Formats: sequence, structure tokens, C-alpha cells
Amino acid sequence: MKICNTQNNNPTKKLPVMKNYTDVYTEYKKIIDKILSTSIQKQTPETLYKPLKYLLDGGGKRIRPVLLIFACEAAGGKMEDAVNASVAIELLHNFTLVHDDIMDNADTRRGRLTIHNKWNTNVAILSGDHLIGMAYTYLLKTDSERLGEIARTFTDGIIEVCEGQSYDKEFESRKDVTVEEYIMMIGKKTAKMLETSALIGAIIGKGSAEMMLNLKEYSSNLGIAFQILDDLLDITSTEKELGKKIGGDLVEGKKTFILLKALELVKERNDLSKLYYIIEHNGLENNEDEQIAGIKYIFEKHGVIDYAKKEIEKYTERADNSLNKIPGSESRDRLKWFSNMLMSRSF
Amino acid sequence: MKICNTQNNNPTKKLPVMKNYTDVYTEYKKIIDKILSTSIQKQTPETLYKPLKYLLDGGGKRIRPVLLIFACEAAGGKMEDAVNASVAIELLHNFTLVHDDIMDNADTRRGRLTIHNKWNTNVAILSGDHLIGMAYTYLLKTDSERLGEIARTFTDGIIEVCEGQSYDKEFESRKDVTVEEYIMMIGKKTAKMLETSALIGAIIGKGSAEMMLNLKEYSSNLGIAFQILDDLLDITSTEKELGKKIGGDLVEGKKTFILLKALELVKERNDLSKLYYIIEHNGLENNEDEQIAGIKYIFEKHGVIDYAKKEIEKYTERADNSLNKIPGSESRDRLKWFSNMLMSRSF
Repeated sequence: MKICNTQNNNPTKKLPVMKNYTDVYTEYKKIIDKILSTSIQKQTPETLYKPLKYLLDGGGKRIRPVLLIFACEAAGGKMEDAVNASVAIELLHNFTLVHDDIMDNADTRRGRLTIHNKWNTNVAILSGDHLIGMAYTYLLKTDSERLGEIARTFTDGIIEVCEGQSYDKEFESRKDVTVEEYIMMIGKKTAKMLETSALIGAIIGKGSAEMMLNLKEYSSNLGIAFQILDDLLDITSTEKELGKKIGGDLVEGKKTFILLKALELVKERNDLSKLYYIIEHNGLENNEDEQIAGIKYIFEKHGVIDYAKKEIEKYTERADNSLNKIPGSESRDRLKWFSNMLMSRSF
Repeated sequence: MKICNTQNNNPTKKLPVMKNYTDVYTEYKKIIDKILSTSIQKQTPETLYKPLKYLLDGGGKRIRPVLLIFACEAAGGKMEDAVNASVAIELLHNFTLVHDDIMDNADTRRGRLTIHNKWNTNVAILSGDHLIGMAYTYLLKTDSERLGEIARTFTDGIIEVCEGQSYDKEFESRKDVTVEEYIMMIGKKTAKMLETSALIGAIIGKGSAEMMLNLKEYSSNLGIAFQILDDLLDITSTEKELGKKIGGDLVEGKKTFILLKALELVKERNDLSKLYYIIEHNGLENNEDEQIAGIKYIFEKHGVIDYAKKEIEKYTERADNSLNKIPGSESRDRLKWFSNMLMSRSF
């Protein structure tokens, strides 16, 4: 399967039934958005509920909650039974965004000011903490005989996400991070949350141990592919599509997949001077288009971009293979569409 | 009942059976300490698990976990059944300490450097987040048919503690906080965590609705008394007993019970100039002993200290009255001893 269209083409092209699935996705997203926008009923304390309302009205792709519902359906369950848990996983995801933005000094998110920037760090810390409480509140509304298992799976997700973010921050000040370590880190920071979504969906849908294993493999591989694509798009996308200047990760000195892979692959040290500069100085001093274009040229010349695309395909195929192990159904096809849709994005 | 010995006398004096109960308290504390000290098994990521190990080896009074176990026993349950939940509540308490210390710029805690001070703010944010995950991990080990109810009670605790801390931070920049608002705030910030402990203990002990109500009343009143005493000791204790300079709250401009009550009670505005200075300037410029002694003198002269002691007695009596509503037993007496012990502390 050919995926990962990093050019500006229509991601629906190769997926004939997508229209249908897009409608379902849009419908579920709307349900989640509606619950999120009414989840804050209190007005005071103002420094807690104003930022939370601002955040939860801010939109988002709602990938994790939709995955949770799709997984529930694939396991034989109903959407209605998974809605509260899906809201919970989105709230948990938002908690990670709010706290990560503090740590990364991010000024904007989804085109709007971050909470710590619009208010202050204390407000952002407390908003994030409160989101964890809100997340469990919704999760624990789930009507399931396996509520303990659901809550434990959710909690394992929190633990690993914290580990992943800790590694990510550690890597920022290390000059010798390997690609292997990077994959381990994104496994915890990005993939684990997708895995948690799929697993909880499967439990609510009363999935068997085998179903759970396959959905776990599907979502964790999807998560790795998703993050490598994210890293790749930082340099192969356009400013218009990305909604921000390309090469931002390089400027900030992030240890992304392509940067680490380039350092591992490329033997001509001469060509790497700019990359070593990023490693040594923890980023670039300014974001000049020529500079980024130059680095992109090096990546292309040495096949790093192609390598990344192949890795994305590898993990996406692994995800699809896991899906193929579960009995054929409309909901299985929908999950297949879902991963293809995520991997076809160009922004 | 006369409680609240703010002088340096022996708090056990009026409690003939205390020795026995002290032993039980010490034994339970040891069990909790042991679990906490072995709760961190992983070594990496180092910037997550080193600070957590440092924190959880740092000791503490373990008031909340012991209260949880005592409440479980009072409801008819066994200590063993409540141990995991008691560790959970202590971990949750530690989460609030780590994040509050960031917000309050606190350099030390329990005589040791705070995490954000010893490491940095990012490490402290992540350590706190992780503690919530750890807390749920232990909580969800609890073997109870009412696990959903236990987890929901725990989650309600998190929500209110975040609200309480938000109010506390809001009050810092407000000049018109009332005593009533203050009581509402400590109800959420301090009392709610004791209430959560007692309620979860009662659920594990299979307590009836009536038992739960009485233990809830007991612990929330105890929590209010506990916090007012804390505020009072900041000025009536000694540096030796407190382990830090007295008057710290005044220096930091905290809106404590005695400060707010003084502003409400005292009519001679002349005497209040120093207090207005604290409100206007959000604290005192330096911590000179004469200055603090002067303020203490004003508090004493206008009966604010006595008023605070009476309030502490009032809430402690309410707590005791709630206890009297539950059937007499050794474990009820132990809870009575527990509140008296807490209220007799002079540090």
C-alpha cells in the first residue's frame, strides 16, 4: 500500500467509501465537541473555569475519542456506550497539551494563544491538573462491568505519557540520542495514548483478549507512524498547509526522527554541518526560509525523506495487518479508513 | 472540651489512652512509609523517577492515609483492605504539594529543597502529574465491590482541591477577601482531602449511608479546624517548634484566617496600619522579629488569637459531635483521639 502523501493532493482519492466514513467521523466529532463545550458549567473560580472553557471550545481533530468509539464498535459495542470514555480520553489529551505547552514555551496552539501565555503558568498548571479530574469524572460514568479494568488502562496511559514527556525533555539537552531511543520515546508520548483509546474502546465493546491484542497492535503502530509523519511534515509540508512556518522543529532543536536518522545515515560529515549546528546549539538562531530549504535539500539528497516515508509505511502496514486479524466487518473497514485518513494528511 | 494548646506543652496530657493509639498510628504510618519508599522501582527516565524517589523518601505526618484507615475500621472494615487506598491518598496529597510549591515559589518543604528548586519547574510539573497516575494505580488495586464509587469519590477530591488552590491564588491578588470566602476556600483546599480520605475509608469498610455522612461531617469539620490552627501557629508557635521563622504567612502576604478576621473585627484603624500594609503590598518586605511581634501584639490586644482558638474549638466540637452519632467502639475512640491529637499540636 502506498500512503503518506506529503504533497498537496486530495487524501480521499484512493478511498472510494471515504465519503461515508467521513460523515461518521464528522458526526462523532460533533457529539464529542458538544459534550466538551458543555462540560464546564461553573463560573468560579474564574481563573480555573475561564481558561478551561476557552480551551475546550478551541476545537481539535478529536482523533483519540473517535478511535476509541471506532474500536468499541469493531469489538461489537455501541457508540453510545463509549461516548463518556471518549470524552475522557480527549480531556486527558488536552491535559497533556496544556502542560506540554508550558514546558515547551509554546505561544500558540491550534492558532490560538496557549493558556500559560494568555493567563500565566500557575493557571495552566491548575487547568491541566483539573483536566485529569474531569477526564476521570467522564470515564467513571461509563456503564461497564469492567470499569476497574477501564480505569486501570486509562491510568497506565497517564503514567506512560508522563514518562514519554520526561524522555522528550531529557533528549532536548542530550547530543547522543539514537533513533531507537526516539522510537521508544514516541511510543510512550504519542502511541500510548492511541493505544489507550483503542483498548478502552475494545473493553467497553466487550472485546475478547484476542480482539484487544489486535486493536492494541493496530493503534500503537498507528501512533508511531502518526508521529514520524508529524516530524516529516514539519519540513515537507508548506506554510499554508501547516498553518505555521515550516522547519519549526529544527529551529527549536527538537530531536525529530528525520534529524536523528540523518545523523545516523549520512556519512559525508561535510553535508551535516548544519545538522551538527542544531544539535550543538539546541536549534537554529532564526527561521530563514533558505536555511530550512538547505536542510531539506540535505535530507532529500541523502534519502532521509524517503527513508522516513518508508518507515511510516512500515508502521502503517503493521497497523493494517493487525486489523486484518480481526473478523471482517463495516467497523473494521472504518478503522482501516481511519488510519489511512490519518496517514494521508499533508498538514 | 479545651483543645488547641498553642503553648509548648505536652499534647498527650489530657488523653489517658493516647499511648496505645499513638502506637497504632505509628504502626500504620510505618506501613504506609514502607510502601511509599518501594513504590518507585524504575530508574528511567531519570528526571522523573529520581525526584519522585527523593520526594517519597522525604517523610511526612501521613495524616490523610491514617485517617482513611481509621475511618475504614470505624465503619467495620479491616486495615489491610484500606492500605492501597491510603497510599493513594498520600500520593495525591503529595501531588498537591509539588504543584502548590511551584505556584507558591516555595524553596523548601519538610526541611528539604522542593522539587522545582532542586531540579526545575518542568520536572516538578511532570512529577506532580505522574503522582496522580501513581495514586490511581494504588487506588484501583483496592478489592471492593464499590470500586466505582471509591474512584468517583477520589476524583471529586481532585476537582475540589484544584478549585481550592485556584481560589487561594486568586485571593492573593485581591484586597477584599472575606472570612466567609476564606472558609469556603479552605473547605476545598484542605478539608476536602480529609473528607475524601474518610469517605473512601468508610466505603471500603462497607459503611452505611449514615456512617458515611457522619464520617464526612467529622472529617470536613476537622479539616477546617486543622487549617485555622495552621494559620494560627504561624504566629503563636516558636521558630524552634515550627522549624522555620514565625510570621512567614504574613511576610508572604497570605490571606490567613487571623489576618482576615483582624481586618473584620478591629475597629481602630490606627492599629491596623501594618495589616493594611500587608494587604496593599502583598506581604512584608522583610521578616524582622520585632515587626512580627508587633503584629502578634495587635492580634492579641484585639482578641483575634482568642477568636481563632474559639473557632478551632467550634469546628473540632462539630467534628466530635459527628463522631458521637456513630455507635461506640474502639475505632470510634481512636478517631476521637486522632482529631484531638491533630488539634493539640503546637507545630
